[in-house]
Amino acid sequence: MHRLLFTTCSVLFFTLVSAQEDSLFIRKLADEILVNSKAYTNLHTLTKTVGGRISGSPQTYKAEQWGKQALKDAGADKVFLQECKISHWVRSGKDEAKFIAANKETPLKVLALGNSVTTGSKGITAPALLINSFDELEQRKNEVKGKIVFYNYKFNPRFIHVFRAYGDAISYRVYGASRAAKYGAVATIVRSMSESTDNYPHTGAMIYNDSFPKIPTMAVGLWDADKLVSAIQGNKNVNIFVRTDAHTLPDTVGYNVIGEFTGSEFPDQYITVGGHLDSWDPAEGAHDDGAGCVHSIEVLRALKAVGYHPKHTIRIVLFADEENKGGGSAKYIEEAKKEKHIFALESDAGGFTPRGFSLGIAKERLEKMQRWIPLLQPYGVYEFTGGGGGADVDSLNIKFGIPVGELIPDSQRYFDYHHTAIDIFENVNKRELELGAINIAALIYLVDKYGL
Amino acid sequence: MHRLLFTTCSVLFFTLVSAQEDSLFIRKLADEILVNSKAYTNLHTLTKTVGGRISGSPQTYKAEQWGKQALKDAGADKVFLQECKISHWVRSGKDEAKFIAANKETPLKVLALGNSVTTGSKGITAPALLINSFDELEQRKNEVKGKIVFYNYKFNPRFIHVFRAYGDAISYRVYGASRAAKYGAVATIVRSMSESTDNYPHTGAMIYNDSFPKIPTMAVGLWDADKLVSAIQGNKNVNIFVRTDAHTLPDTVGYNVIGEFTGSEFPDQYITVGGHLDSWDPAEGAHDDGAGCVHSIEVLRALKAVGYHPKHTIRIVLFADEENKGGGSAKYIEEAKKEKHIFALESDAGGFTPRGFSLGIAKERLEKMQRWIPLLQPYGVYEFTGGGGGADVDSLNIKFGIPVGELIPDSQRYFDYHHTAIDIFENVNKRELELGAINIAALIYLVDKYGL
Repeated sequence: MHRLLFTTCSVLFFTLVSAQEDSLFIRKLADEILVNSKAYTNLHTLTKTVGGRISGSPQTYKAEQWGKQALKDAGADKVFLQECKISHWVRSGKDEAKFIAANKETPLKVLALGNSVTTGSKGITAPALLINSFDELEQRKNEVKGKIVFYNYKFNPRFIHVFRAYGDAISYRVYGASRAAKYGAVATIVRSMSESTDNYPHTGAMIYNDSFPKIPTMAVGLWDADKLVSAIQGNKNVNIFVRTDAHTLPDTVGYNVIGEFTGSEFPDQYITVGGHLDSWDPAEGAHDDGAGCVHSIEVLRALKAVGYHPKHTIRIVLFADEENKGGGSAKYIEEAKKEKHIFALESDAGGFTPRGFSLGIAKERLEKMQRWIPLLQPYGVYEFTGGGGGADVDSLNIKFGIPVGELIPDSQRYFDYHHTAIDIFENVNKRELELGAINIAALIYLVDKYGL
Repeated sequence: MHRLLFTTCSVLFFTLVSAQEDSLFIRKLADEILVNSKAYTNLHTLTKTVGGRISGSPQTYKAEQWGKQALKDAGADKVFLQECKISHWVRSGKDEAKFIAANKETPLKVLALGNSVTTGSKGITAPALLINSFDELEQRKNEVKGKIVFYNYKFNPRFIHVFRAYGDAISYRVYGASRAAKYGAVATIVRSMSESTDNYPHTGAMIYNDSFPKIPTMAVGLWDADKLVSAIQGNKNVNIFVRTDAHTLPDTVGYNVIGEFTGSEFPDQYITVGGHLDSWDPAEGAHDDGAGCVHSIEVLRALKAVGYHPKHTIRIVLFADEENKGGGSAKYIEEAKKEKHIFALESDAGGFTPRGFSLGIAKERLEKMQRWIPLLQPYGVYEFTGGGGGADVDSLNIKFGIPVGELIPDSQRYFDYHHTAIDIFENVNKRELELGAINIAALIYLVDKYGL
């Protein structure tokens, strides 16, 4: 009994001392970020001097240069580019749409979806068919031929975590065109992936099924979606006009931008922290995913600034081409096969106030990590949930079983801005952005120190 | 042992069944609010048709009418006005300031502080004295005479909960004028109570010490505060000009607007839920405290809509004159002496995504309440902390020991808008506002059902 008691006390003593040391270190990291962070100014430069940076655009290469410089300025021991094949879809003009009912034309705020084909310069005019779900599409498949199908599937407001509403609705954006083309539709319009209170259309990737004709496809703003619903419900003869010059060019060459903070004990073992450097084209990609890029760079800067010496190499990765085909991620995963990776985390859910981490990791390891939550609670993180990492790192887990994670910020505002013209710097709050960086830096410190 | 086991199992069984029932009920409440809430449209009407409603202004009375109607529309069993004495401070023109250094004039964005006296129509010009803290003021008291003292005490960014930074800095706004007047200052300017990234000045209440001359006092925007610091540090002869027509009129008559949902078992026992109806004048008082008013009204509407029958009377109170002298609260407390109150909660920290509740309640009762946290976690509330209620209900606790509480939303953005020209409807997110109402409604349900 005495020996057991002694052992228990020792463990407890060690645990308390260690927790206190960690708590003090994380406080130091937090102060460093709250007082000296470069995350917000870095985001300003990326969004205002580079701007929107859709894969393959000239801004893609300006963003890579920005990333290299920002990583050097943050104190990276090594900065390099990793060549990869990236997609190159282009929208050069303004996408247009309107509906015509009882001889009256009503314009619609639209954006062609990523990968959409062009309508041709004259556009397409065809009768509208309102479809509320894929079930309804199947029931009414005989009515589809020659029509422009308008998918009006709404975000379900009952989901508290808004990404669940996105997950519930996204197949209409991604697969809607080909599912309608199968029955002869000539174009599709999809209600924007949002439950915002404004009318900005939300673009985003779609995928064609090669078995069916490729037809143009667009997203429409929510107010205009509601107008279109009313018009169709009130009038059997509604026509829609759509025009976009969107088109896909051959894949091109791009780069993941990588900066390293070399490990002192295991320099060949990597902890990855990343965001994606590309964005959609309507705005500046501030939340999606400028925030994730500057979060990641800030982790390196802050850990260096407080004099931390990581055991493992902490590798900051600004991934190319996440929004479209994931060319950057594919290349990183391919190279990772030859390396030893401890953990990979992405920030790709916006620069909002943090709430928790989602982790793709075995249950018993997750439970071990959950013991760290009290260390992060003072900075707003209350939950480590099972789930996965961000889109760019998930395959490391799926293919090689490497633990992955993603910062989960509060999701309420994300789909107000996501893939719209208002995903701009002004809609990111400095302190919310910094709190994200604090929590990621703290988690990386704990993973580096204690392993998983 | 068997009997103990049986008892334990029974308690456990009851607890589980009861928790499940509560969980289902709260889910129903949440769905009702997420799908049918009037909080956002109510806020739109209050902010856009009434607008800013500083105590004593014509909008005060328009807001009372709005509140009565909104409570009736929400289904209140009884709506009435409670007369009280309210303050009446007026700013009729534009406040102005500039500094003059090396013959160059630089305008400053300023707002006179609430209760400030006028400078007279010609304004006041006097040499600037930069003071960073009250300690420095005491050390340099001999230099103060005839000067305009500029208090440059900054928000400390290290506080995670930004209200702590406010608490740390606020005495410069509230007491700075009289502390400088004591040594002969002719006016004061205070760095705005914020760490925002913009230049909007933040007004707010100040209090004169009657022992010293009443001198005019203003808040200056943060960019201009920094400019003024640079100018003073770079040039010994900086003059400041200030002009405001602010002045105080005699107290007048106003009303707390009250709506009740009558209790079925204890109609004479009250659970209060409130916000304050007045606001500062530069904008619409959307977060401060339109949000709290519409939160409170929504609690009543949603509980009615889901068919709940409260045991106690739930009383929604839209308090008058919180920002200035608390005339509405004083009257409510005076009346409450004659009544039995169970609990009083205020929402006065903005319409942001909720984080927790602060509770002014005995420790053992707080611990009991903390058992409810798992029921609120799905809606974003993770913490019940000791502390107090909002400004309007705190005295119920201090004077009569009645448990009080306050919703604690995420605080990161609050002081970007607080008392500025941008505290407008457009800066409130619909879902964040609704999540606040969900958590308050759920807590009120639990208090009503289980007591405290």
